[in-house]
Amino acid sequence: MTQWSYPGVAETAARIRSGRASPVNLVEICLRRIEALDDKLRAWATVDRRAALDTARGLERELEEGGLRSPLHGIPVGVKDVYYTAGVKTSAGSKLLEDFVPEYSATAVQRLESAGAIVLGKTECTEFAANDPAPSRNPWNLDHTPGGSSSGSAVAVAARTCFVTLDTQTAGDVLRPAAYCGVVGLKPSYGRISRHGVVPVAWSLDTSGVMARSVEDVALALGVLAGHDPEDQSSSTRPVSDYSGAVRGWSDPPTLGLLRRYFYDHAGEEVREHTDRVVELLRSAGARIEEVEPPEDLGLVYAAHRAVVFSECAAYHQETFRQRPEDYGPKLRQLIELGQVTPAVSYIQAQRLRRRFGRRLGETLRGMDALLTPTTPTTAPSGLSATGDRRFQIPWTFAGVPAINVPSGLDRSGLPLGIQLVGALFAEDRLLATAYWCEKALGVDLHPPVDE
Amino acid sequence: MTQWSYPGVAETAARIRSGRASPVNLVEICLRRIEALDDKLRAWATVDRRAALDTARGLERELEEGGLRSPLHGIPVGVKDVYYTAGVKTSAGSKLLEDFVPEYSATAVQRLESAGAIVLGKTECTEFAANDPAPSRNPWNLDHTPGGSSSGSAVAVAARTCFVTLDTQTAGDVLRPAAYCGVVGLKPSYGRISRHGVVPVAWSLDTSGVMARSVEDVALALGVLAGHDPEDQSSSTRPVSDYSGAVRGWSDPPTLGLLRRYFYDHAGEEVREHTDRVVELLRSAGARIEEVEPPEDLGLVYAAHRAVVFSECAAYHQETFRQRPEDYGPKLRQLIELGQVTPAVSYIQAQRLRRRFGRRLGETLRGMDALLTPTTPTTAPSGLSATGDRRFQIPWTFAGVPAINVPSGLDRSGLPLGIQLVGALFAEDRLLATAYWCEKALGVDLHPPVDE
Repeated sequence: MTQWSYPGVAETAARIRSGRASPVNLVEICLRRIEALDDKLRAWATVDRRAALDTARGLERELEEGGLRSPLHGIPVGVKDVYYTAGVKTSAGSKLLEDFVPEYSATAVQRLESAGAIVLGKTECTEFAANDPAPSRNPWNLDHTPGGSSSGSAVAVAARTCFVTLDTQTAGDVLRPAAYCGVVGLKPSYGRISRHGVVPVAWSLDTSGVMARSVEDVALALGVLAGHDPEDQSSSTRPVSDYSGAVRGWSDPPTLGLLRRYFYDHAGEEVREHTDRVVELLRSAGARIEEVEPPEDLGLVYAAHRAVVFSECAAYHQETFRQRPEDYGPKLRQLIELGQVTPAVSYIQAQRLRRRFGRRLGETLRGMDALLTPTTPTTAPSGLSATGDRRFQIPWTFAGVPAINVPSGLDRSGLPLGIQLVGALFAEDRLLATAYWCEKALGVDLHPPVDE
Repeated sequence: MTQWSYPGVAETAARIRSGRASPVNLVEICLRRIEALDDKLRAWATVDRRAALDTARGLERELEEGGLRSPLHGIPVGVKDVYYTAGVKTSAGSKLLEDFVPEYSATAVQRLESAGAIVLGKTECTEFAANDPAPSRNPWNLDHTPGGSSSGSAVAVAARTCFVTLDTQTAGDVLRPAAYCGVVGLKPSYGRISRHGVVPVAWSLDTSGVMARSVEDVALALGVLAGHDPEDQSSSTRPVSDYSGAVRGWSDPPTLGLLRRYFYDHAGEEVREHTDRVVELLRSAGARIEEVEPPEDLGLVYAAHRAVVFSECAAYHQETFRQRPEDYGPKLRQLIELGQVTPAVSYIQAQRLRRRFGRRLGETLRGMDALLTPTTPTTAPSGLSATGDRRFQIPWTFAGVPAINVPSGLDRSGLPLGIQLVGALFAEDRLLATAYWCEKALGVDLHPPVDE
């Protein structure tokens, strides 16, 4: 059990700075854990041992010469297999891309590398980041789904085979696996992190995000990744903040809006009771929490989100699907077929609803630090043929606002529970500070039993 | 013929400043012309004589006290009947809105009024700014269409019943009527002028624009109208320029890219010959003109534009069309019905083509001041049942780049001809300066025979 003594990014960075930790040693430890665990966990699609060790040696030399690129200097990370990585296979979980080796790296990957993070390899994801499962297994119970589409990333972070992963969310693809596996998952605002060089699902929804084991670690990663990219038409020019500074500088208890309607209607009993206990706990720590109403019929929001995903996904795959339908999994095939019969008017009405919902959500959030909901209706369902219910994450992806999962406990069967905090557009600093406060108040630190 | 001595905005503004012209007198002259001419021209849907005279008196008092709001202070203008005007009927050419009196004015109208422009009333437009004609007639030949959808505006400016009009373009709605009636029409970049409070046609294409009798007048109007509006989600935050300063500060001959392909394929012989003569004339005045290729198949661009208009228009009218189909004209009805059967995939592919076309067009324009084409395939067609061919204006509306019509002569039957200049995204200053240079080089000043 000594492995669990591994600290997160913040503490490891301090050790690297003071010479008490070595990038090469960190990579070796992670590679050994992957070797020991990944046959059963299947978190990693591709691991480039030699490149990771070479990079680590180079970064170690820089340290010896007094160079320190960022708090991620020397930190081993994973990259979801939808991000282009120059010279490294990028298959996005699809047969169609099984031999695809990009010539360049996605902007977000380049940013990680420039910051001194060491990319160990690519993490497994569902087929084209849609609904046909990845081979990954939940580290808390191998017979349960780890969620998706960023399945391997959540498993890799939970099992301590890397410190941070770079991911994407189109529906609930970061927060759901993070919640099912007991790690922190952040989907920032739409456009906050570049998507240049990412295999798309639905361009008006696809959002780059990150996972790590703590809110502070996620803030450090966002600090490296956030910012405008002229190569990405959806990339925002809104100024970025000092996210880890915002997290550390926080002390006041937050004001939260609890959303029971819709969420409690769809959540299982254990999740409802757990969320109520979390609310009591946060209140007793000083948080002001009042119940608020969803600013829109969230069933309608869900339907509108589906119309957008169906249509944009069908448009992206139009030519390939015509030529090679047999190379698509059954769930993605169905999704594309639904997109083929979606009328433009439905798509446009869905986008109109989205703008209205975003506006109203901004009003609901006024005077609040964040909204609070359970992250998922239940803990990770048993079985590996589906990746779970996206319904609780979809509204925030649709509105483009930032959302984060904070692990909040274990259910009776020993599976992770989490709360979801939702912030105002481009106010990631405030959301992260709020999440950090809640994380401290909850005092939950989850270790999956993978080494037993 | 003494009416033709009326100067444009720039000179009139100088006379107002020096007390040689009076806002009240200007309004009286315009109202008299409307009274004399509008029974046959049908340019005006609503004229608010009393309000215009009251406003003129107020502005005159301000002048007496030394107040001058802008170069448009005291200048009579018209507003296309799709812009909301507080307390003044706004029917957008539709039976459905025949009794609609908005409670507030569109941002662009407010800007005109704050600048001291005097809104005489609303100009006629096609039904919902689509294809069912307005009652307006071409002042050069009453049996010919004035074009559309900003039909009344082009007629009103050509017939000197006002100095400037505020308009919209979704396909060719500003430049085509401007060309057919022999006035200057500017469609700035998408998002340059606010559309808040405008009855929409297709939200991702609708662009506010202006008409006047000279390039300098159009530049003065743009100076008042351009700028970010937080009430309009499509409004750009890109900085505005001193447009009239850019126009007056220009002296070097421009570098132009002549587009023959597609345009000469579709243009009539007289337009082709005329455009070649214009090119020779501009060259002999010093312009560098080289022929360039369209950066995309413009037939495909046309089809993509249609898919977007059909879909967005059908989405906007969805509920009303279900309830009151009989209140729609045959052309708009057909357009909505085409939108109802357009698949979302076609709409999305059209929007993808648009982004690619915009990118490529930016490359084509590099090193150029503007592209040059004939504005329309022919001069104004005879008959009042249709508003003419939009094909030459559509690519630029689709790409969102600014375009301007500069009158360039009369055809054998005495109808106006025009050239279209197309600039880079948000580079209205450069486009206007180029247009001003061409206007001077051509030396064309057109007076329709309405007073004969």
